[in-house]
Amino acid sequence: MTVKPCPLCERVANAAKDPMLVAELETGVAVLFEHQFFRGYTLFISKRHASELFELDAGWRARFLKEMTRVARAVHAAFKPRKMNYELLGNVVPHLHWHLIPRYADDPKPGAPIWEIEAGVREVKPSAAEAARLRDQILGHLCEA
Amino acid sequence: MTVKPCPLCERVANAAKDPMLVAELETGVAVLFEHQFFRGYTLFISKRHASELFELDAGWRARFLKEMTRVARAVHAAFKPRKMNYELLGNVVPHLHWHLIPRYADDPKPGAPIWEIEAGVREVKPSAAEAARLRDQILGHLCEA
Repeated sequence: MTVKPCPLCERVANAAKDPMLVAELETGVAVLFEHQFFRGYTLFISKRHASELFELDAGWRARFLKEMTRVARAVHAAFKPRKMNYELLGNVVPHLHWHLIPRYADDPKPGAPIWEIEAGVREVKPSAAEAARLRDQILGHLCEA
Repeated sequence: MTVKPCPLCERVANAAKDPMLVAELETGVAVLFEHQFFRGYTLFISKRHASELFELDAGWRARFLKEMTRVARAVHAAFKPRKMNYELLGNVVPHLHWHLIPRYADDPKPGAPIWEIEAGVREVKPSAAEAARLRDQILGHLCEA
């Protein structure tokens, strides 16, 4: 549909070399979000290119949503936030990808969507060592039954 | 868990009398969101009280997510937005409910989450007649196979 290659198709194709990779599952790739103000904020990117959930065939979609839930559970188990937020937007890059965002009790606006918090507050890039530590914490719980 | 009754449990229990009701499905209730700046903005509220997707048993959760997708598809078919946004937040009321938000080409901030648009712009209540018309448009597509 697009002339330019889809950046998330490219990211999935290069997942093995992705510095933010958490895990590659059957239907998608889990990567740490580039900003880690919300400790453990993870993206789950579909391996299949589609813009909307209802474009996926029913069987694949069910497995994609099951794996998304599995990643969210692992993030929750690793960091014990007050609440998880699950967002599938794609307004800029229309390739299915979930934002799985842990919300903590000391959040600047605990009742609001994260987007109501100033970008200058929520956009904090982790060091490579911090990213590796966060990844290992999530992985430790992703491998549970 | 909470002392006060959960407002979304109450809303589900009284769905038949809900002025914003679109449809009652097996696992949840679809209602128009109170503001209709984004024409067709619909909530899909779980019939079971839970805060997180991974608290639901696997079979029920799969049906809940399938029905959420069905509602999103109907909203999309009825109003033909540029993109659907799917959000499960629950920061204020921790009872599973999806925000299914159509995003249009003439959106004030088409690339951003709706929460970055000022409340004064996006908070527009429909008249009862408008709500009925929107509901009928969604229903017309919800009943498709």
